[in-house]
Amino acid sequence: MKMTKPLILVTNDDGITSKGIKVLIEEMSKIGEVYVMAPDSPNSGMGHAITVDSTIHIKKSPIFGEVESFECSGTPADCVKLAKHEFLKGRKIDLLVSGINHGLNSSISVIYSGTMSAAIEGAIEGIPAIGFSLDDFHYDADFEHTRPYLGQIANFVLKNGLTKGTALNVNFPNQKKGEIKGIKVCRQTNGYWQEEFDSRKDPHGRPYYWMGGYFVNREPEALDTDLWALENNYISIVPCQYDLTNYAALDSLTKGGIES
Amino acid sequence: MKMTKPLILVTNDDGITSKGIKVLIEEMSKIGEVYVMAPDSPNSGMGHAITVDSTIHIKKSPIFGEVESFECSGTPADCVKLAKHEFLKGRKIDLLVSGINHGLNSSISVIYSGTMSAAIEGAIEGIPAIGFSLDDFHYDADFEHTRPYLGQIANFVLKNGLTKGTALNVNFPNQKKGEIKGIKVCRQTNGYWQEEFDSRKDPHGRPYYWMGGYFVNREPEALDTDLWALENNYISIVPCQYDLTNYAALDSLTKGGIES
Repeated sequence: MKMTKPLILVTNDDGITSKGIKVLIEEMSKIGEVYVMAPDSPNSGMGHAITVDSTIHIKKSPIFGEVESFECSGTPADCVKLAKHEFLKGRKIDLLVSGINHGLNSSISVIYSGTMSAAIEGAIEGIPAIGFSLDDFHYDADFEHTRPYLGQIANFVLKNGLTKGTALNVNFPNQKKGEIKGIKVCRQTNGYWQEEFDSRKDPHGRPYYWMGGYFVNREPEALDTDLWALENNYISIVPCQYDLTNYAALDSLTKGGIES
Repeated sequence: MKMTKPLILVTNDDGITSKGIKVLIEEMSKIGEVYVMAPDSPNSGMGHAITVDSTIHIKKSPIFGEVESFECSGTPADCVKLAKHEFLKGRKIDLLVSGINHGLNSSISVIYSGTMSAAIEGAIEGIPAIGFSLDDFHYDADFEHTRPYLGQIANFVLKNGLTKGTALNVNFPNQKKGEIKGIKVCRQTNGYWQEEFDSRKDPHGRPYYWMGGYFVNREPEALDTDLWALENNYISIVPCQYDLTNYAALDSLTKGGIES
């Protein structure tokens, strides 16, 4: 009997030429048939944007040799939609992996993340999906230490599936922190970005702004969060959902008398 | 004793010249001091995108007369961050309202919505926030029937506050459906967009795509969803959260043995 390899869709938000997606493609090629549909340029901070009011352009890319690869002018979420509904129409995608993001996507950053929007789009479409990110913003970040875990986590999901409507947010500690201690299942840390805008003047005297700032952890003492895991050199895994309903708040709104 | 009017920040995703924001500004001006920071062009489908890799430009706008208004080259989430951390720095924003969106943001659409990303950004920043949307995609949509409810819902939130980490997703039925029956607190309908891409060739023979498709309701029989409310001519209110952790899935991952 011939065993069919699982079909694995790979995307990211840093663009098809980034270092992280290359590592991910190499590791996924060991366990499945890989199909790549990734943005043709960086899409960091793209959140769950989709291209509704303009056209999307796709080009076959030769950069991964025999791995069928396409570069797309759209967002990470567009890439998933196009692959699923147009390019791989009629085929079952067994796994979607997104990343490896060049930079951390823990805590509140998940909501701004193009990497995770692709994974969550997968969950919406009923595809088991994982977003991988690395805690390293250095331009020459080292992704090598993530390799043994990529296949391990992907194989776990291929074998066990995921709770319906859920995608995994996987973050790797910085390589400089030394040997990884293990993997922890966590919840999203409650935190936010304290923005500080750098206000400048253009050559015509008009003001413009660069977004900057620093992250604030609202619960630095908590032991079950993704940031705790990462600070203690564990890989963090947060199961993420796309149902945004705050069920706990339904009652207080109704009792408060907002209905009529 | 002089009563201070509440400070209300108004934004949207259809851009500062759209019909919906004008109605919202007019109604909010009746109950508070209004400050407008809205995109200078349409940002539909922008999700929770932020501008991290380029500059943001702001210009004072005269279009709302005495209401202090700015148009911003950034996304809806950028508008909230800039208003809070730069333009209104040091002042307490009592309420953030976003919209009125030209089109429905019920069910899964909340995740792609620029209107709701602004409201959720408000929740992240600790500002009570509401996103308003109208079930009408017609270019000349009529927003008039929403007027009496805008102040009513805003006043409810100003008086009662909202559960921490929560923003309201308010959708209005189409004006053509006749008199609104009332307001219902709901959960987000489980549904998705079944994409159908329209594939075309450009004048050079290269392929390009338009995203299209139709919405699929996975639970048309459910009575407690936002789509049920809207179909039955009620205004739907869904409390939305930014914590994406699927708490119910934590256990099955741990028991499945993904940790090490």
